Amino acid sequence: MLDDTLAAIVPVDDALATAVQARLDNLTKPPGSLGRLEALAKSLAGMSGSVGPAVSPPGVIVFAADHGVAEEGVSAFPQEVTAQMVANFAAGGAAINVFARQIGAWLEVVDVGVKSAVAGDGVVIDKVRPGTANFAREDAMRLAEAERAIEVGIRAVARSHAAGCRCLIVGEMGIANTTPSSALLAALSGQPASRLVGQGTGIAPERLAHKAEVIEGALAARGVDPSRPLELLAKLGGLEIAAMVGAYLSAAARRMPILVDGFIATVAALVACRLAPALRGYLIFGHRSCEPGHDVALELLDAEPLLDLQLRLGEGTGAALAFPLLEAACRMLSEMATFDSAGVAPGGKAE
Amino acid sequence: MLDDTLAAIVPVDDALATAVQARLDNLTKPPGSLGRLEALAKSLAGMSGSVGPAVSPPGVIVFAADHGVAEEGVSAFPQEVTAQMVANFAAGGAAINVFARQIGAWLEVVDVGVKSAVAGDGVVIDKVRPGTANFAREDAMRLAEAERAIEVGIRAVARSHAAGCRCLIVGEMGIANTTPSSALLAALSGQPASRLVGQGTGIAPERLAHKAEVIEGALAARGVDPSRPLELLAKLGGLEIAAMVGAYLSAAARRMPILVDGFIATVAALVACRLAPALRGYLIFGHRSCEPGHDVALELLDAEPLLDLQLRLGEGTGAALAFPLLEAACRMLSEMATFDSAGVAPGGKAE
Repeated sequence: MLDDTLAAIVPVDDALATAVQARLDNLTKPPGSLGRLEALAKSLAGMSGSVGPAVSPPGVIVFAADHGVAEEGVSAFPQEVTAQMVANFAAGGAAINVFARQIGAWLEVVDVGVKSAVAGDGVVIDKVRPGTANFAREDAMRLAEAERAIEVGIRAVARSHAAGCRCLIVGEMGIANTTPSSALLAALSGQPASRLVGQGTGIAPERLAHKAEVIEGALAARGVDPSRPLELLAKLGGLEIAAMVGAYLSAAARRMPILVDGFIATVAALVACRLAPALRGYLIFGHRSCEPGHDVALELLDAEPLLDLQLRLGEGTGAALAFPLLEAACRMLSEMATFDSAGVAPGGKAE
Repeated sequence: MLDDTLAAIVPVDDALATAVQARLDNLTKPPGSLGRLEALAKSLAGMSGSVGPAVSPPGVIVFAADHGVAEEGVSAFPQEVTAQMVANFAAGGAAINVFARQIGAWLEVVDVGVKSAVAGDGVVIDKVRPGTANFAREDAMRLAEAERAIEVGIRAVARSHAAGCRCLIVGEMGIANTTPSSALLAALSGQPASRLVGQGTGIAPERLAHKAEVIEGALAARGVDPSRPLELLAKLGGLEIAAMVGAYLSAAARRMPILVDGFIATVAALVACRLAPALRGYLIFGHRSCEPGHDVALELLDAEPLLDLQLRLGEGTGAALAFPLLEAACRMLSEMATFDSAGVAPGGKAE
């Protein structure tokens, strides 16, 4: 399934940008005056292969899983919160539920590896294993498990696509998951963990050094090779991060624009781009988070996010908050009058 | 009418921030993790005087007027475009129409001083005079006309409030209106016009020096006094800028949060704050525009906009694009579950 998905990813169609630019310059506004929204319209056209791209309804998929490394004391919240938050998602009370409703999104929560049993309407149980092992002591999972977690993501996007979704937002829930994300980024960027780790859900500043030490020790012990992204996922985790990788690959294979959330989502995107470089063309970055590693990951992907609101929640919330800008870019193209149709004189004459 | 409006503006209620903070910290997310959205929620509570603020539906009012200074060759578009764009607004084809529909806004277009006759469904004719005089040669208007234009704005907001609007966005259309805006800002900031002027709708770079010279010459000839904001409006214009000033004052008097658009809208806000300093508490800034003077105006108001999308269109478009963030801040407060209600363990225990 992974190989088929990778093979189905074609580069975005840059040729459409010319046609979209011509339309943009004929809309009733000074050329270029809608700035990044105009660039977004061109990007969305190239991704979807249409000069009239559409992004509604968006699909929001939240992957949840637990992390063995939580036992190292790297999170401000106890591990049982992962399952409690999945129940909160199912009941519609979390931030991502609120923002997904606001944007009219199709929402699915997928248990790809929560430690305890979870249930609730709208929770898809596709559990690869009940949490990863503690990657500070052993590999987070076996390679075959990482592949199965990727396939969970591929299947979820197939469901969203079948439900009519035109754009993908992927979120995550997993207590301690900034730790494997920082470890993956350290391995892929070559940067020391101490430059990448942040407070995550809110650990005390004096715990940051401990978090970095846990990661550095694990990287040395696991013997990571940055040229082998699948192996990295298996050694460092986590299950929801692997599912996100699969979701991105699956969306790109279906030419769905992908609106990337914050730090963890961006690290997953970085891993996915190492598996399929053409994926990069399908990525739009929703926001710049407070997590210090996010800047490093964004730079590796040459990405400039749409929003900078000092968010550090995850769940897909930052991407959901940015989504109206994608919708606006599409509506600009499809709904605005042209100089001709509106009888407005184009500019440049008075210079 | 202006005096009554000024007298009705009370400072925002900062005491509500404490109650809203307590609620924010009990919602199912790490404390502070929704960053600026949390600050927005507190601001909106203080503005509206409610711990459960609401901003929908927003009211979008676009004020249109012409500028005598257009004859100095300071715009890339001919003056007749103002009336043509008003017709485009009436027909629903301009960018602000598209974005206002997207956010479910009540929209009104007000002709406060277009040179020629305009018509169309949804255009309110409340014309003070058919365009300003050329302020490079004489005062843009008389003081009484500036006051009447302010009253046009006050009346428009009264209509939006009666229609149920809970938040105000004000836009403008007026060929050449970055020139009086830059002149007002030069007078209020003491900065040379050459540091403030930008390409507006897209004049060629070599015309920028001419635009600055026109402004510097006019400022010297008109004898402006930064401590007399009404007089400044009369001397420099424009009619739609004065109407925006009146709209802001009227909204604050009604405790409606105000979402400020770009350069021209921010200069109008600066003038309004000189008339009523308590107005500042009711202002949220939608975006940072490309116009170089915008940074200067924002700094004078100690403002940090929500978006930075390289926009330079006006019409209220940047504010309309930022509006979903205000809506999200309100929904976060009213719709998210609390730790207690969701049975989620609060953080901090694992530190």
